[in-house]
Amino acid sequence: MGAYEQVQSHIAEVNDILNAVNLLTWDSRVCMPASGASARANQLATLTGEAHRRLLDEPFVELVRAAREELGAHMTDLQRRTLDAIDEAIAYHSAVPPALVTELALLKGRANQAWLSAREADDFESYAPVLEELVQLKRQLARLTGDGRPLYDALLHEYEPGMTSERLLSLFAEIKGPILDVISNAAAESEVRTDFLSRSFDIQAQKEFALEVATKFGYRLENGRADTAPHPFEISLTPADVRITTRYDRNNLPMSLFAMWHEAGHGMYEQGAATEHIRTAMSTDLIGLYAVAGTSYSMHEAQSRLWENFVSRSATFWDNHFPELQAKFPEQLHDVNAAEFYRAVNKVQASPIRIQADEVSYHLHIMLRAELEIALLEDELTVTDLPGAWREKTRDYLGLELDGDRLGVLQDIHWAAGLFGSFPTYTLGTLMAAQLFEAAVEQKPEIRSALEHVDYVPLFDWLSENIYQHARMYSSEELLLRTSGRPLEAAPFLRYLAAKHSS
Amino acid sequence: MGAYEQVQSHIAEVNDILNAVNLLTWDSRVCMPASGASARANQLATLTGEAHRRLLDEPFVELVRAAREELGAHMTDLQRRTLDAIDEAIAYHSAVPPALVTELALLKGRANQAWLSAREADDFESYAPVLEELVQLKRQLARLTGDGRPLYDALLHEYEPGMTSERLLSLFAEIKGPILDVISNAAAESEVRTDFLSRSFDIQAQKEFALEVATKFGYRLENGRADTAPHPFEISLTPADVRITTRYDRNNLPMSLFAMWHEAGHGMYEQGAATEHIRTAMSTDLIGLYAVAGTSYSMHEAQSRLWENFVSRSATFWDNHFPELQAKFPEQLHDVNAAEFYRAVNKVQASPIRIQADEVSYHLHIMLRAELEIALLEDELTVTDLPGAWREKTRDYLGLELDGDRLGVLQDIHWAAGLFGSFPTYTLGTLMAAQLFEAAVEQKPEIRSALEHVDYVPLFDWLSENIYQHARMYSSEELLLRTSGRPLEAAPFLRYLAAKHSS
Repeated sequence: MGAYEQVQSHIAEVNDILNAVNLLTWDSRVCMPASGASARANQLATLTGEAHRRLLDEPFVELVRAAREELGAHMTDLQRRTLDAIDEAIAYHSAVPPALVTELALLKGRANQAWLSAREADDFESYAPVLEELVQLKRQLARLTGDGRPLYDALLHEYEPGMTSERLLSLFAEIKGPILDVISNAAAESEVRTDFLSRSFDIQAQKEFALEVATKFGYRLENGRADTAPHPFEISLTPADVRITTRYDRNNLPMSLFAMWHEAGHGMYEQGAATEHIRTAMSTDLIGLYAVAGTSYSMHEAQSRLWENFVSRSATFWDNHFPELQAKFPEQLHDVNAAEFYRAVNKVQASPIRIQADEVSYHLHIMLRAELEIALLEDELTVTDLPGAWREKTRDYLGLELDGDRLGVLQDIHWAAGLFGSFPTYTLGTLMAAQLFEAAVEQKPEIRSALEHVDYVPLFDWLSENIYQHARMYSSEELLLRTSGRPLEAAPFLRYLAAKHSS
Repeated sequence: MGAYEQVQSHIAEVNDILNAVNLLTWDSRVCMPASGASARANQLATLTGEAHRRLLDEPFVELVRAAREELGAHMTDLQRRTLDAIDEAIAYHSAVPPALVTELALLKGRANQAWLSAREADDFESYAPVLEELVQLKRQLARLTGDGRPLYDALLHEYEPGMTSERLLSLFAEIKGPILDVISNAAAESEVRTDFLSRSFDIQAQKEFALEVATKFGYRLENGRADTAPHPFEISLTPADVRITTRYDRNNLPMSLFAMWHEAGHGMYEQGAATEHIRTAMSTDLIGLYAVAGTSYSMHEAQSRLWENFVSRSATFWDNHFPELQAKFPEQLHDVNAAEFYRAVNKVQASPIRIQADEVSYHLHIMLRAELEIALLEDELTVTDLPGAWREKTRDYLGLELDGDRLGVLQDIHWAAGLFGSFPTYTLGTLMAAQLFEAAVEQKPEIRSALEHVDYVPLFDWLSENIYQHARMYSSEELLLRTSGRPLEAAPFLRYLAAKHSS
């Protein structure tokens, strides 16, 4: 076996281990009795540790060098991308002392507990010290692994390789004004009816409808499964087994539907990876130590939001599907028509909780968090000043006065979980979705007419060919350039916003 | 950290990895879409390979030696048993060349396919060549790992450490005559009614009744879960998460009930391991590379059969529980009484299929297989002669003429899965169950009266204290000596047989 082949076979096993980690994670959220948590934490730590060990294994590092020499000038793009990804991961993990990894894991555990109690008691102060420690540790990590980048950019890079805070803030600046305009126009408009969304909807019927649509989109249930979990997520165990979850509430119909279509969007991305990428570095995030075929968090989010928002929240979609939904729930929806339903699930209104926000004001929540993260990392804001800064921005951006921190700085688990730099991917993913959707329809105008005829195949095929199959072979930016001829930009999202929400 | 402590921490991670293997296995039988099988096989091979690698890791082997020296004369029994188990496993795995492990894994894959096709087509000849290869490989393995034991004894040792074919055959000889007597008496007796067992029983109601009883026995559902699987099994992910499965058939009520109680018996054993044994060699089969707290396959089977047969198939049990069952199924059981139900689920009658056999004739099926296995391993029988030998023994032992091999030599997957030497544990487990049950009732007579009053706590407590908590600290033989003062013997089972089946 040549050196490159040996590298591939080594990485195949790392991918196996990380897929086992994915199953342990899925099970812990879907099946595991609560009492299994402590043993599960050990199992996860051992397997993740083993993947880490194998990446830094000296003979393996040597093998990667040998593979580069062996291939020399004959290296294909795929081989180069593979070896680059591995080298970058080796450099990243080599830069972090094992003691720091352990310290961070323990600190996350403490922070998670402190956050839970603090949120329960609406007591940010009790959580502030451990959050401060976490910020300091993340700064240290960013300094060690950032390759000279500004600290926040080093963290951003883990979720969206190549993204900088400068570029991020400039994209934010472009979309902020138009978003604020939509919100104030919406407030001025006549009341949108939403009363019917919280009537009593049988959960089994919700599930059937949501899944029927998801499989029409192209999610293959025979290569996955759909379960219930308190926090919806998608997880992949190679393309032949990609599982999605959603949550149900009898009195909140849109919640389960849009969550299912969102997760199905993630799922189709994972199911669509080409066979040649299975068990390779092209379906493994070797820095995050996570088995995933999607090329970045933002591009993954682009796939879920494309189906959730650009397809499922469109007027065309509800013109087509509302009659089926009404047939499933004849009593609950007898006094509603497709247009009213469409308006209800698109109602724009500022609210304090991110995960309950509409598709427009949502991005203000992200800006608020990203700006605070940047300030924390760059030492321009202390953790003690965080609640005040949060309230101020909530007042500025959303026009809301917060009563306590539960609806404010304590609402999201992300920071307690050590996630700094991941919030922006939700907005970046939306911008990418807009850009991809525009490119798709422009290149293949039949996509639009097919959508009007409940035919999702042309859109699915375009995404499979241009995005899904490539797995991690191209970065987000490369995918955008290949498909739209342009780097990531805000214009397509702004056009979408204007077309949909200006009236 | 001292050497012994380091050994413990190394084994803790091996146990984590093998628990992850258990979850991958559970999921593949309960949740995984069929298309996930090929990726899952890779994941299982990688993790099992890693556990194997860590056991033979040179610095670890050195550490085990150092731990023995470090502890010297101050070694506790637990420490000695731990180091002995590790040393035996190192010797075992060191004796097997990696190429043989791979060859065996591939061969099992081929044999499994060949067996499936052969059974489908009732064509033993197509399966014979690969089975012959498998027998040769198992002989080679037995020669390498058997430490001078006869070949079959080397394989037996993996499932029941210390057991020999000589002792096995002598136990068989003791029980064979009495079993044949019970069968011929049963045939001479008047017909036992069983018509009502195949009426239509709602599956949800079957599950509720079976689980209610299982939790009364002492299986803790809050530290596990009960699912459906085509072949019932129990699997443990440390004592806090022990899962059982059963299968259901609307027209076969006893099948799901007894399978649930059988698996709950296995489950209670695993749930009962003392905390000090978690993540140690005392809850890891380091030879079989399997995370399990039970000390041997036979002792595990003793726990399941004790609850399934000695408790749940007793007249007392049905006197107590039949009214509840009848209340759950008033229409289906309106013309049946407790005594008739008891007789129906204890009806003795020779039949060709092992897994459908009653608790008495069952053991003839095991003898038949064990005798053929011994002959194959000792080269006294060729694979080609197997179907004929099987028919002959079926005629001799069960008085049945076989029409084809599907109901004969092709009925069980075990040999195709490379399992030679595991069948005897089903009978050995039953003998152990009889011996333990007798010892329990003798030492604590209140167990018997408690059972009469639907109080399973005294029996459960006795088993917890005498068996469950010890995990793999004592061998089966040691446990029998500690509890009954006697080595394994057939007499208690014969007394049970006489008391229950002689009338």
